[in-house]
Amino acid sequence: MQDRQHIVSAFDEELHRIESLILEMGGLVETQIEDAAEALVRRDVELGDSVRDRDRHVDTLNARIDEEVVRLLALRQPLAEDLRFAVSALKIAAALERIGDYAKNIGKRNTIIARSEVLQPASRSIRRMSALARDMVHDVLDAYLRRDLPLAEEVRRRDQEVDHMHNALFRELLTYMIEDPRNITPCMHMLFVAKNVERIGDHATAIAEQVAYMLTGEMPGADRPKADATSFTAPGREDEKQG
Amino acid sequence: MQDRQHIVSAFDEELHRIESLILEMGGLVETQIEDAAEALVRRDVELGDSVRDRDRHVDTLNARIDEEVVRLLALRQPLAEDLRFAVSALKIAAALERIGDYAKNIGKRNTIIARSEVLQPASRSIRRMSALARDMVHDVLDAYLRRDLPLAEEVRRRDQEVDHMHNALFRELLTYMIEDPRNITPCMHMLFVAKNVERIGDHATAIAEQVAYMLTGEMPGADRPKADATSFTAPGREDEKQG
Repeated sequence: MQDRQHIVSAFDEELHRIESLILEMGGLVETQIEDAAEALVRRDVELGDSVRDRDRHVDTLNARIDEEVVRLLALRQPLAEDLRFAVSALKIAAALERIGDYAKNIGKRNTIIARSEVLQPASRSIRRMSALARDMVHDVLDAYLRRDLPLAEEVRRRDQEVDHMHNALFRELLTYMIEDPRNITPCMHMLFVAKNVERIGDHATAIAEQVAYMLTGEMPGADRPKADATSFTAPGREDEKQG
Repeated sequence: MQDRQHIVSAFDEELHRIESLILEMGGLVETQIEDAAEALVRRDVELGDSVRDRDRHVDTLNARIDEEVVRLLALRQPLAEDLRFAVSALKIAAALERIGDYAKNIGKRNTIIARSEVLQPASRSIRRMSALARDMVHDVLDAYLRRDLPLAEEVRRRDQEVDHMHNALFRELLTYMIEDPRNITPCMHMLFVAKNVERIGDHATAIAEQVAYMLTGEMPGADRPKADATSFTAPGREDEKQG
């Protein structure tokens, strides 16, 4: 009994180490999203570059989480919810790593976008959209930590707001491009930035689904509300319905 | 002894079932990539739509692989290379699922691109680029099946060709957009298509890295040759060096 106690608590310790690595990774990724958007608004090339450089810390954390999970699987051979926790940790870390890549890519594109005057309003829209996406990441990791299923589901629903902002921004940017050919290059990069933020929302949603799986053993179905319609967008066209 | 034999072979059977599910998923994804590119060249909206619809089969296979792996981890509690095999199966299936999403997105964008005349040459470039990416997927799964490390590393290196084609196409499309505002919307969708194909190459590379991890226990480092420079691209600018 004494022994079993001992094993259990050692196991919990390892689970918590993985958990706190995921939260550390999440905090870093939130900052990356924020700084990438801030760099656009301030047209701050240096800040954009530092986001690019810091991405490798995100990747390192992802690799460490993978190692810890494989170690946990090998040494503890967890079952039931503990096994689901371990598998979810791999998937959540992978999603955070992808989110980090999107922030990094925004940092890269900033070097071109910063040269353009016309994108100031769009940059502020991106910052609002990024704030939504960042809050999704923050809250879904909160749901993960607190094992809070309703919060995870609420985050999933929130992805629609990001998609709607993306649709609107997409049409706005197409209009700038059509107005003046000099806007084409920066707007095109801004379209990719907007797409990156939209994808960050999708990955936060994927994490929410992992949290649901971890807590229930069931993966939420394809019932997820999807409102991104830009794959069908022509300027001025009404397409939210086609999301 | 008899018993142990029995257990071992049952275990191998499960490994092989997972393996063949991954190959089935890979075959489906290859077809999706091919059909998505073919739909663009033929301006065949129906074919593009069928790619969109078939994506759910890819997702279903991904979910089945996840279930099988979790079952394997729970019932067999594999160690060493068997454990790495199980973890790699999760990651390879996830990468194939993302590749399927990129093909699906190309199918979606085809509904707008098909309306434009100007993109015929670009569509053919996309088909060439897609063929390279599809071959990467095919060969990396071959490397996975045959446990062929040199082939996996060769696939990793091949990603550069896709990146170079992407850079060239990116500049070409920017030029069309600047020439005539009517080209902006279709070209912009084509830029996203090109980006999707480039990302397919990246995910094939990620699978190659998983195969290397599975075979060696070591994840290949960030030494991967990266040649995508489009995040810095302005029209006519020489930017391969900045990849």
